[in-house]
Amino acid sequence: MSDATNSENAELTEMCQYVLRNHGKRIRPAMCILSYYVCGGKDAKKAIDVGASIELIHNATLIHDDINDQGDLRRGAKALYKEYTIGKSIVAGDYLFALGFRLLGASTDSIIDYIVDAASGLAAGEFSQKKYERNVVVDESEYMKIIGGKTARLIECAGKCGSYLAHSDAEDIDKIGQFAYNAGLAFQIIDDVLDVAGDESSTGKRVGNDIVEGKPTLPIIYAMEDPVVGSRVKEIFTNPNSTYDDAAECISLIKKTDSIARCREKARAIADEAKASLGFAPDSVYKRSLIGLIDFFVSRDR
Amino acid sequence: MSDATNSENAELTEMCQYVLRNHGKRIRPAMCILSYYVCGGKDAKKAIDVGASIELIHNATLIHDDINDQGDLRRGAKALYKEYTIGKSIVAGDYLFALGFRLLGASTDSIIDYIVDAASGLAAGEFSQKKYERNVVVDESEYMKIIGGKTARLIECAGKCGSYLAHSDAEDIDKIGQFAYNAGLAFQIIDDVLDVAGDESSTGKRVGNDIVEGKPTLPIIYAMEDPVVGSRVKEIFTNPNSTYDDAAECISLIKKTDSIARCREKARAIADEAKASLGFAPDSVYKRSLIGLIDFFVSRDR
Repeated sequence: MSDATNSENAELTEMCQYVLRNHGKRIRPAMCILSYYVCGGKDAKKAIDVGASIELIHNATLIHDDINDQGDLRRGAKALYKEYTIGKSIVAGDYLFALGFRLLGASTDSIIDYIVDAASGLAAGEFSQKKYERNVVVDESEYMKIIGGKTARLIECAGKCGSYLAHSDAEDIDKIGQFAYNAGLAFQIIDDVLDVAGDESSTGKRVGNDIVEGKPTLPIIYAMEDPVVGSRVKEIFTNPNSTYDDAAECISLIKKTDSIARCREKARAIADEAKASLGFAPDSVYKRSLIGLIDFFVSRDR
Repeated sequence: MSDATNSENAELTEMCQYVLRNHGKRIRPAMCILSYYVCGGKDAKKAIDVGASIELIHNATLIHDDINDQGDLRRGAKALYKEYTIGKSIVAGDYLFALGFRLLGASTDSIIDYIVDAASGLAAGEFSQKKYERNVVVDESEYMKIIGGKTARLIECAGKCGSYLAHSDAEDIDKIGQFAYNAGLAFQIIDDVLDVAGDESSTGKRVGNDIVEGKPTLPIIYAMEDPVVGSRVKEIFTNPNSTYDDAAECISLIKKTDSIARCREKARAIADEAKASLGFAPDSVYKRSLIGLIDFFVSRDR
């Protein structure tokens, strides 16, 4: 990935390196490469390239997301547009997006279809998220669609690409896809839990961001259903001028309900469903790693 | 292109259709398809797909450019981010970018390389343009590099893709590339002339935009060299608070110099050089069309 970002423009290269240096958990490349091995692949070179390509595209969308959401911090460091400018960051995001497609090289139609489907899902997920911003009408099933587009589809794509590259048949590619999609849902539910119940020094993100931004998340949706604190949570969630102080109040209200426990339970149930999709694959160190990955998703605190 | 933009999200589809409805001159697909025929291609289906793909990528960058430059109008209609929001428009641009790559389908390495090279050139061009914003140090050779990255490289890419698809040898692909690159330079010089000397009802753009935005263009660079009006032109160009009234004054000063005539002369000289690159190709209706295209670029008033 790092080699791919060298450009003729020193500042552009520097911005790409800034983004890659503060890297995240790189779960999409992990999903791609492990899925490849689980499905019997032997030489992961191509799966590594495709995984890196997906990670570059993911980073490109994060740069643009931070601009849209006016997020200050990303992975414990200043968001790119805060360190440079919005204009340059839009362009740097486009550049990383193009590099992602370059790394794909001459891939087959299927790989490109998987990735473009996921990229268009990202756009659709962003659109429904905006539709339900500060909107109490949002419910669990709408939430699942939003995080499906926003998070799970690119992780699903990573799994399907790995499986496809290992020459799996269509049925097994679907099963790995179901595993990875559900893993993505579980990951995002816990991500949203950490916005309420996380520790800033572990997560690298300010707690309460989603509440201040009016983003519909599962902990908020469940808390809005609570007969005692629900109406005050709704007030804060729908207030376009809510502050981090309001968010702190909202978090203490959410913590009085069973919302966090229900979210964790939901994530665990989805993770169990995901693991069941892996029944087709023989036991191996790679399969155990995939299961370890999803266990980490639902138990993590960062 | 229109078929490609159908998505599961109605508003996203609507935004894509908005951009495609107010289409421009579509010179990139024209360059791709004509180059294909000039180089002896017979069935243009693939060249049409690649041309459409390049046009989608071009439109994606225009959406983002308008956000960066705070441009109000695009092709006589409101810029997308003015009709919708900045956030949605960043996402819609990303989506069109992804669709562009989807339409490429399973193209060969060379086609993808040409396109990613051009896309990275766009980013580098934007970066140098920003470096020379309101900066009197900019000269003709820096300007040529900026418009090379910003405009000429994607047009060059369209020509090279067409030629490559017609199975030309490396030398002929280079020559078509030189033709198309120079055509792109000539096109952009006249575009910049029209910002000063154009008629708003023909161009669909407000005159004086580049001056208000402090963009380094050839008419401004030449006028800054003028012994009589140069110092006042410099004052307006470097003023971060300049208005459209200031731009109107600047334009009337530029018109007192030989700047516009020199720009048109420069564009014509580059067009002549471009035509010379086509010497290798036998006469045909397609070759005459390419020559007609570049003649239009340098004589157009819209």
